[in-house]
Amino acid sequence: MRPSPIAATVDLEADGVRHGFLRLPHSRDDSAWGSVMIPLAVIRNGEGPTALLTGGNHGDEYEGPIALFDLARTLRAEDVRGRVIVVPAMNYPAFRAGTRTSPIDRGNLNRAFPGSPDGTVTQKIADYFQRTLLPMADIVLDFHSGGRTLDFVPFAAAHVLPDKRQEAASFAAVAAFGAPFSMRMLEIDAVGMYDTAAEAMGKVFVTTELGGGGTATARTAGIAKRGVANVLRHAGILRGAVEARETRWLDMPSGDCFTFAEDEGLLEPLVDLGEPVRRGDVLARAHPVGRTGAEPVAFRARLDGILAARHFPGLVKAGDCVAVVGVAD
Amino acid sequence: MRPSPIAATVDLEADGVRHGFLRLPHSRDDSAWGSVMIPLAVIRNGEGPTALLTGGNHGDEYEGPIALFDLARTLRAEDVRGRVIVVPAMNYPAFRAGTRTSPIDRGNLNRAFPGSPDGTVTQKIADYFQRTLLPMADIVLDFHSGGRTLDFVPFAAAHVLPDKRQEAASFAAVAAFGAPFSMRMLEIDAVGMYDTAAEAMGKVFVTTELGGGGTATARTAGIAKRGVANVLRHAGILRGAVEARETRWLDMPSGDCFTFAEDEGLLEPLVDLGEPVRRGDVLARAHPVGRTGAEPVAFRARLDGILAARHFPGLVKAGDCVAVVGVAD
Amino acid sequence: MRPSPIAATVDLEADGVRHGFLRLPHSRDDSAWGSVMIPLAVIRNGEGPTALLTGGNHGDEYEGPIALFDLARTLRAEDVRGRVIVVPAMNYPAFRAGTRTSPIDRGNLNRAFPGSPDGTVTQKIADYFQRTLLPMADIVLDFHSGGRTLDFVPFAAAHVLPDKRQEAASFAAVAAFGAPFSMRMLEIDAVGMYDTAAEAMGKVFVTTELGGGGTATARTAGIAKRGVANVLRHAGILRGAVEARETRWLDMPSGDCFTFAEDEGLLEPLVDLGEPVRRGDVLARAHPVGRTGAEPVAFRARLDGILAARHFPGLVKAGDCVAVVGVAD
Amino acid sequence: MRPSPIAATVDLEADGVRHGFLRLPHSRDDSAWGSVMIPLAVIRNGEGPTALLTGGNHGDEYEGPIALFDLARTLRAEDVRGRVIVVPAMNYPAFRAGTRTSPIDRGNLNRAFPGSPDGTVTQKIADYFQRTLLPMADIVLDFHSGGRTLDFVPFAAAHVLPDKRQEAASFAAVAAFGAPFSMRMLEIDAVGMYDTAAEAMGKVFVTTELGGGGTATARTAGIAKRGVANVLRHAGILRGAVEARETRWLDMPSGDCFTFAEDEGLLEPLVDLGEPVRRGDVLARAHPVGRTGAEPVAFRARLDGILAARHFPGLVKAGDCVAVVGVAD
Amino acid sequence: MRPSPIAATVDLEADGVRHGFLRLPHSRDDSAWGSVMIPLAVIRNGEGPTALLTGGNHGDEYEGPIALFDLARTLRAEDVRGRVIVVPAMNYPAFRAGTRTSPIDRGNLNRAFPGSPDGTVTQKIADYFQRTLLPMADIVLDFHSGGRTLDFVPFAAAHVLPDKRQEAASFAAVAAFGAPFSMRMLEIDAVGMYDTAAEAMGKVFVTTELGGGGTATARTAGIAKRGVANVLRHAGILRGAVEARETRWLDMPSGDCFTFAEDEGLLEPLVDLGEPVRRGDVLARAHPVGRTGAEPVAFRARLDGILAARHFPGLVKAGDCVAVVGVAD
Amino acid sequence: MRPSPIAATVDLEADGVRHGFLRLPHSRDDSAWGSVMIPLAVIRNGEGPTALLTGGNHGDEYEGPIALFDLARTLRAEDVRGRVIVVPAMNYPAFRAGTRTSPIDRGNLNRAFPGSPDGTVTQKIADYFQRTLLPMADIVLDFHSGGRTLDFVPFAAAHVLPDKRQEAASFAAVAAFGAPFSMRMLEIDAVGMYDTAAEAMGKVFVTTELGGGGTATARTAGIAKRGVANVLRHAGILRGAVEARETRWLDMPSGDCFTFAEDEGLLEPLVDLGEPVRRGDVLARAHPVGRTGAEPVAFRARLDGILAARHFPGLVKAGDCVAVVGVAD
Repeated sequence: MRPSPIAATVDLEADGVRHGFLRLPHSRDDSAWGSVMIPLAVIRNGEGPTALLTGGNHGDEYEGPIALFDLARTLRAEDVRGRVIVVPAMNYPAFRAGTRTSPIDRGNLNRAFPGSPDGTVTQKIADYFQRTLLPMADIVLDFHSGGRTLDFVPFAAAHVLPDKRQEAASFAAVAAFGAPFSMRMLEIDAVGMYDTAAEAMGKVFVTTELGGGGTATARTAGIAKRGVANVLRHAGILRGAVEARETRWLDMPSGDCFTFAEDEGLLEPLVDLGEPVRRGDVLARAHPVGRTGAEPVAFRARLDGILAARHFPGLVKAGDCVAVVGVAD
Repeated sequence: MRPSPIAATVDLEADGVRHGFLRLPHSRDDSAWGSVMIPLAVIRNGEGPTALLTGGNHGDEYEGPIALFDLARTLRAEDVRGRVIVVPAMNYPAFRAGTRTSPIDRGNLNRAFPGSPDGTVTQKIADYFQRTLLPMADIVLDFHSGGRTLDFVPFAAAHVLPDKRQEAASFAAVAAFGAPFSMRMLEIDAVGMYDTAAEAMGKVFVTTELGGGGTATARTAGIAKRGVANVLRHAGILRGAVEARETRWLDMPSGDCFTFAEDEGLLEPLVDLGEPVRRGDVLARAHPVGRTGAEPVAFRARLDGILAARHFPGLVKAGDCVAVVGVAD
Repeated sequence: MRPSPIAATVDLEADGVRHGFLRLPHSRDDSAWGSVMIPLAVIRNGEGPTALLTGGNHGDEYEGPIALFDLARTLRAEDVRGRVIVVPAMNYPAFRAGTRTSPIDRGNLNRAFPGSPDGTVTQKIADYFQRTLLPMADIVLDFHSGGRTLDFVPFAAAHVLPDKRQEAASFAAVAAFGAPFSMRMLEIDAVGMYDTAAEAMGKVFVTTELGGGGTATARTAGIAKRGVANVLRHAGILRGAVEARETRWLDMPSGDCFTFAEDEGLLEPLVDLGEPVRRGDVLARAHPVGRTGAEPVAFRARLDGILAARHFPGLVKAGDCVAVVGVAD
Repeated sequence: MRPSPIAATVDLEADGVRHGFLRLPHSRDDSAWGSVMIPLAVIRNGEGPTALLTGGNHGDEYEGPIALFDLARTLRAEDVRGRVIVVPAMNYPAFRAGTRTSPIDRGNLNRAFPGSPDGTVTQKIADYFQRTLLPMADIVLDFHSGGRTLDFVPFAAAHVLPDKRQEAASFAAVAAFGAPFSMRMLEIDAVGMYDTAAEAMGKVFVTTELGGGGTATARTAGIAKRGVANVLRHAGILRGAVEARETRWLDMPSGDCFTFAEDEGLLEPLVDLGEPVRRGDVLARAHPVGRTGAEPVAFRARLDGILAARHFPGLVKAGDCVAVVGVAD
Repeated sequence: MRPSPIAATVDLEADGVRHGFLRLPHSRDDSAWGSVMIPLAVIRNGEGPTALLTGGNHGDEYEGPIALFDLARTLRAEDVRGRVIVVPAMNYPAFRAGTRTSPIDRGNLNRAFPGSPDGTVTQKIADYFQRTLLPMADIVLDFHSGGRTLDFVPFAAAHVLPDKRQEAASFAAVAAFGAPFSMRMLEIDAVGMYDTAAEAMGKVFVTTELGGGGTATARTAGIAKRGVANVLRHAGILRGAVEARETRWLDMPSGDCFTFAEDEGLLEPLVDLGEPVRRGDVLARAHPVGRTGAEPVAFRARLDGILAARHFPGLVKAGDCVAVVGVAD
Repeated sequence: MRPSPIAATVDLEADGVRHGFLRLPHSRDDSAWGSVMIPLAVIRNGEGPTALLTGGNHGDEYEGPIALFDLARTLRAEDVRGRVIVVPAMNYPAFRAGTRTSPIDRGNLNRAFPGSPDGTVTQKIADYFQRTLLPMADIVLDFHSGGRTLDFVPFAAAHVLPDKRQEAASFAAVAAFGAPFSMRMLEIDAVGMYDTAAEAMGKVFVTTELGGGGTATARTAGIAKRGVANVLRHAGILRGAVEARETRWLDMPSGDCFTFAEDEGLLEPLVDLGEPVRRGDVLARAHPVGRTGAEPVAFRARLDGILAARHFPGLVKAGDCVAVVGVAD
């Protein structure tokens, strides 16, 4: 495979703090010799483990970019042992557009791995992480939130993995993150995910869902900022002890967690995030909007638990995931 | 002025429950003899006052449409004395598109009054309310929320008016609505608003802001449903007593309530809705997103109060209203 | 009112055949000093009446432009007594785009009269016809068809007018046209129409609907070509006798001619154009398309007659005119 | 190859009538966890052959969806022996948009076979038919019409095949369909077609072209409804005898059937569908539209036969197929 | 007329240097309480004349904005006597989009005067200049260039005016500007222009055309920077003497200066800007692009002079101005 | 690999002059059986070498198409020995749209080689040149200019090649072309280029950059017309001697030739094309446009030479190439 067309404008190996870019040449109608410039910061202080910290894998999820732009600006080399590589907005074109996928190629970065150096812009970004940045890392923290169309109770998460030592290390990092909820995820279809790429290399991999709706709040941004510091402390990269927080563990044991819509309509939620639900409860209703007087369609819980995620926009379309029930320990 | 091109497909005067449409002929490329069909319900039972209930004045605000589609479907004529006219989605093209303004003409209905029978689709809708529906009403309740780009603490509101009797009647209806907050609004620029059109005819006019972000929650939808029933009871149209709720009164005394951005960036909120703030507090910061390491811009409160509204999307642009501070009684 | 910004590039008064343009300056992003160039032909031979012949008033109706581009190319001055002004595509931007309305301003030219020299491009075109071309004419023939979204049995038509002498002259010209059907139209809402503008000046005005669907057939194009020659012969401008054809007269006596949809769906026609129908007959059905197994909605005739027009696209939306029943003599 | 991401929401094997969906997960900006929901009906009654009936392979062709939504709603299990699988709108996103290709990925489903489980939405649909539904079928009927841009005389058709037994069975099914015309097709470039995929598995495969222009008529919808019932009867799945109809057989023996445009212009047809033509006849002309007075370009027949298909829109572009001549037996 | 909705964020009257904005509230789908923020600088030092300096009247013309952003940053209050108001990008939305007209309303600001406080965004900007800024000014310099679609020899210009004293003062300021060319313009259609608005108030008004094509060069940017300083010196506002430069005076005496295209094609220029031409010379040719081998159309000069402006893009459309010949003294 | 779907409508081998098309079938929403028609001329006179002449590889570069449409129209068979194949606009959809890449698939033809017969429209064009036209050629001349977003000093160029005999033959053809500048190019990333495809087959390959900005001038069009004639004479295909011109040789020795922007802004050039520069010189500045008073960013030369290319549009974005310095002999 040919080398990545992406080049870092700063040295990823040198000691100190460096602010630069991943420069990705991108010839297009409005710039024949243009490039996508993905901001990057590297903080290094001698030997030690490397943490790779990413946000903006989806462009409309904000807690990660807030925590990471803030961290990149304030972290001093002397606070660190080893290396911190910060890419606050991985799918930078999507982040600038405020959309889940890239406005250039409509690529969903988290389904584009392992990527390709000859593919679309999104595939080129995936390939660079796959072949250049992930191999440098010992621990990987990738921030997600619900984006414009989903909303979550705030949690950090790791996957159930075949290598139980790797799994245990990942859940330990999740616990260190200290979000209000912590999730054990069993991914049904992991093809193309950044998570899968990192885990297949044996990395400790932590992800999150910290809210959603295409916004952030003071509360969720605070969870993200505290969480990333905790993970770096847990990894021995940042000085100081993990700031311990209580968390509530959740499982998503099967496809019955999910309720999908078969009809479009105006969504009336009847349960809010974090509230307990029982199997058969009506979680929400969709009112037909073509005329008044028509009966709404009910969406029900398929198992007992708490409402962990929900469709965010006021209108729902056939095929949308309306609700996710998480099963508490 | 020539007659409105809009016609109701049901009799607005007859007793009983009628579900129909306001049909607005709209010739266009994809339908030469097409129409906009705005759902309408009329519930009448003999003599008595008329309430005109509207949602979807802006198309991305959902608590009103939820409460009104629900009410239109469930209200029986025998529960009523007088008449209830329900238009759950006034700017119906905007509502179907999930956008503040109309996808047909980008019209902001709440700046289009008194409208025109010869104008754009949005102006024709305004004109029909101005000349046909508003004159029929004794009390008008128009639901708003923040829409996709603003978020509010939930309140019902009325305007400070020159006619103090009318003002008092309006605030009494606000109190009956029973939202967690109640707002006394002094509109600085009221040109083109539906509120102004109704108030100029001497109507009792109640409006709301019940959340935002382009979604609704079980909590805010519940406030809307309870509020509309309370207003109808207060008006003597619906049987039964107002279901009293505690409310907290707020004022927006001057332009100092508003904080506007002069720079674009990634918005990090530092205060959440409903929290107390003091003049000079940093409410939020905007991180420059072109590179890491750059200093954020601070947005500060300009008076003491509580955070009553905020910019919702994760990115902020120059000129956006970042925050509104309400002054509590 | 200031003069029209439109100028003809050829002399409208001189004898002979002239091919030129109506040049309308149009400054825009892709041409700062650009213009809209509307093709125009003038054929004159001494004194005599003036016929103003137009097509493309709506840009997706083709029988008129075919007949008029053909006529403009083949008509010789010596065949004529008086003057023929031919504008085969009035709303030329719409005609080039193949759309009912102008791609520049979405203007429906046939609702833009009397127009304005300071308005949109479409309004400027209307104003030029209103103040320059219509006053030159004795007889006006404006070709229409159904366009992309309607289909008609082929007819020529004139309006019922207060001036019965003008009305009779118009119907005589309709009869001369010799389409398979001839229609007596009672326009309910004539505001903004070219027809109204011409009739208000006392002109003999003939219009047509010669098919539709955004296409033309050999049969309908033939009707148009024969019709325009017949009208010119009838007016004494073209040599020779009217080529007589049998026609069937239709009326559209009331709003009951029209059947509108209140639901969207997949349209299944049950009656074809020109077939007889009786009040209550199901003319078409709309199948819901969100799922299989749902009941279709029936659209019924509201009076006896023949099916004179129908919705053309395979999908129907709420508010579309599904069918028009014409009442035969 | 990994399993298809598409899942049927109903059991394809159980007896009785089931209305459900093919659910295709589709993460996108306006629904992070959204899906495409393709309506599906399965009617089964014990052992017997399986017919796979499809429409909407191209989204702007309507006779097939009309016949199949109608059939799916009305067919009772007790009328059937074996199984009928009905997908009235294969490329459902295209069907909802009323376009030939998918609005999601601009995919032409009939050029996407064998598809891929990792590809675009259109490729995923092709893959599901290739690997799941086609293997279940004994006989396959796929409805086509001309769509928005072509118009055909109504015919059912099958391909000349290397396996003459399979070919004979297919032509027998075409004859049973009973359209006014029947076509023997020799496909020059069969790469990517659904037809080819089915035929390569040895299935009896019948297709149609039943009109076009993006509409349906009572006549053509009737042909489709009668045809599908006849094919099911012929296959022994539906009770009763084939309702015999006269048909006229046509061939498309070579590339000389096709006339392509090398110039753009306003299309004037001189021959209508079904009319006889002789080699050298002018079938249509294109009038230049930039100015009046310019000579039209003639499009001529290249062999004797009848006009079997034609370009539908009123404007023609360079490269468009203007006409197809079929050779009658 | 109601007050302008635009407010300056800085004091226009105070001494010193102030950088701020004209804030124009603009409610829209992506910001319910958003604003357009037009950068503004005011440099004042005591009593003296006021110069109003503007660029970006059209958004794709760059010499003016370059000179004015540079001037606003570097001018010190102590260098000035009186006041300099600098708005480097009047139609700021157009300037940010790099387009002639506003992306919000497609408004051409230089055809929007006198504007309206209730109109579109572009009309509101015009109204603010008309009623607030122009009345403050003694001398007005408005920078133009050719934009993306035209290219000019660099000149400053003023209009022939009925008030000969005002005209003389204006031409004196043009001479002071010191561009390579200076133009005496006789505006044929001055309706809606900023020039006209300023001149009607009796202001000394200077405009320019300093190149084009949607770019700037070191040479043309230098002309703009020197020109604005010279005009301020000439007006007695900036210290120091006018830096004299040789200029060549041109006239545009009639419509024969302009050559318009009646055909589209690939434009081959045969004369370059500034070269002498004689009546009848072929200035450029348009090659038809639909096929090879077709004859090009010639565009000829209609009088003697020099080539002063030309169509810039490589393709030309019917109606475009291909060339302007200026008549040298 | 299957055969190309593209077919030439004229014989490429026969003697004489033929004007035709490369017809590429392209089924799409607006033409189910449509095609892309790429104009082509073949001029042949007996045995002799074949020159393949192309323009419009990028659709917004005009000198090549001008020279080649002109050549194709005027070249007579008797002037030639051997064969000249002329494709004035290779990426014809891009050329008609006036954009660098194809409006159909956003394909950059010069990054699409070797292409594919099953791929996008752009990939099909590449495949046809790769497998059909390039193998026929002895010498290949492919015209480029800067397009809308870059501007160059006018040069012809060839690549430094491993086969020094091929390299020498190529540079000899460059010298014969006779542009004001001649460039020795060392391509850093040659993947997907037409150049690479031709050179890998051992062809003599000449390319150019003859200006830019999306326009042509009389001067640059003249260079192109003279250059192509010279190359044909040099190859012994066209009669007559090469018209010798002085040229200046340039090198682009390393990545230090290029200056990229890391910030967006309003671009102020300080050096013009062709001017000498020294390492460290400020070539241009970017003024921040969000407010007045902010400091511009400087872009500096990284080695000594002349300014050979520059960013053309007035605004610059992060990642754009701002300037290229060429090193003169």
